[in-house]
Amino acid sequence: MSAVVREGRTLKHQIVRRQVEDLLDLLAVGDHVPSERHLATRFDVARETVRQALRELLVDGRIERRGRSTIVAGPKIVQRLMIGSYAEAAHLEGRTAERVPVTWTDLVADHELAGRLGLEAGDPVLELECVLVTDGVHVGLERTHLPAQRFPYLLRTLDPASSPYSAIRACGVTFTRAVERIETTLPDAREAALLDADTRTPMLLLERISYDENDAPIEHRRSLYRGDRMSFVTTMTP
Amino acid sequence: MSAVVREGRTLKHQIVRRQVEDLLDLLAVGDHVPSERHLATRFDVARETVRQALRELLVDGRIERRGRSTIVAGPKIVQRLMIGSYAEAAHLEGRTAERVPVTWTDLVADHELAGRLGLEAGDPVLELECVLVTDGVHVGLERTHLPAQRFPYLLRTLDPASSPYSAIRACGVTFTRAVERIETTLPDAREAALLDADTRTPMLLLERISYDENDAPIEHRRSLYRGDRMSFVTTMTP
Repeated sequence: MSAVVREGRTLKHQIVRRQVEDLLDLLAVGDHVPSERHLATRFDVARETVRQALRELLVDGRIERRGRSTIVAGPKIVQRLMIGSYAEAAHLEGRTAERVPVTWTDLVADHELAGRLGLEAGDPVLELECVLVTDGVHVGLERTHLPAQRFPYLLRTLDPASSPYSAIRACGVTFTRAVERIETTLPDAREAALLDADTRTPMLLLERISYDENDAPIEHRRSLYRGDRMSFVTTMTP
Repeated sequence: MSAVVREGRTLKHQIVRRQVEDLLDLLAVGDHVPSERHLATRFDVARETVRQALRELLVDGRIERRGRSTIVAGPKIVQRLMIGSYAEAAHLEGRTAERVPVTWTDLVADHELAGRLGLEAGDPVLELECVLVTDGVHVGLERTHLPAQRFPYLLRTLDPASSPYSAIRACGVTFTRAVERIETTLPDAREAALLDADTRTPMLLLERISYDENDAPIEHRRSLYRGDRMSFVTTMTP
């Protein structure tokens, strides 16, 4: 069979990474990971090499920082892609989920946002920003845009700490479909701070528009999830 | 309204990043991006600050390296999540897609792979590894596992450069559902080399199991896509 010839070389820190992974397999979730200094001595490599290996294991969610120590991480959270809120999907999987409101802003739609929400530029839009918390971990940062004229009453009564979805449903709106685009990106400094992460942690970026029974857009939502803690799952049919 | 207090500071390279983005907005796809040295002088900052800003723009796919120069990138490819091959989804979007075979390996299933494919540990499995190429860009690296006993004839006749999907369908198998898990990760050196990327480029990792009309697993597939070039879209219904 034909084969592509360019095979990458294995870098030293990746050999060390595998050695550390073998070590982690012997430990339990929550156990302390030996120090950089200890691992450097044990594997007879430079501390910088160990640092790179640990950096990759952090990104992959095998280990996590807790204050000044490093512990063996649990498996990534697996969340279903579905219509509705993060909390609804989390509860289906038997997890707790909390919304911590960050900002509540009255905007006027620019050309791009107006296009997404089926509005005219200049129309009023409400922006809600929340940190999504599961088991005490800041896993996601969600920014929701709602057309203000469509939900004038809802927007006066909405509790920012609870999902806007149930409130929207209570207005008699039925969600019939949602289109989600999935990418990966790096967070900016503000996003990283709100997610207890650093700016080198790859994030999953999910951008969604949900539609009602008349196929009118109800919400635009941009969610940033920590790539070291979250994964998503979807079932496809023909 | 309540608000989370920890607001991150804006880092200098992120101010520069925004200045560079304003500049990119004035250029066309394929245009050369001014040099690090030029940008450092223009914005009166250190070259290291410009380098960090350009690094983030690379990860986000706003710019790309072509040999020793840097050009304005086109938008990320948007690919539908659907049953079937990368090429089938690409063709639906009007794009070309090529499979470059890398390896073709006869394996015996370990405990984990056996579980995924509904086999016994030790059963024979065929592993196909391909680079997925669109418009000359190595966008993905796909590793497919097929139960060898299920498709003995197919596996003797399969052309590794064409999708195994149509060959499987030609055996009378109907794909009824596929479950896909989506994460982000960093590539190892070999994966990065096969994808013309470096090991700091965040990747989208898609892991899929497809099922036939008897709900038996037909294939396990692990696809790594360049996060700076690819995005995925899915439509959800209640």
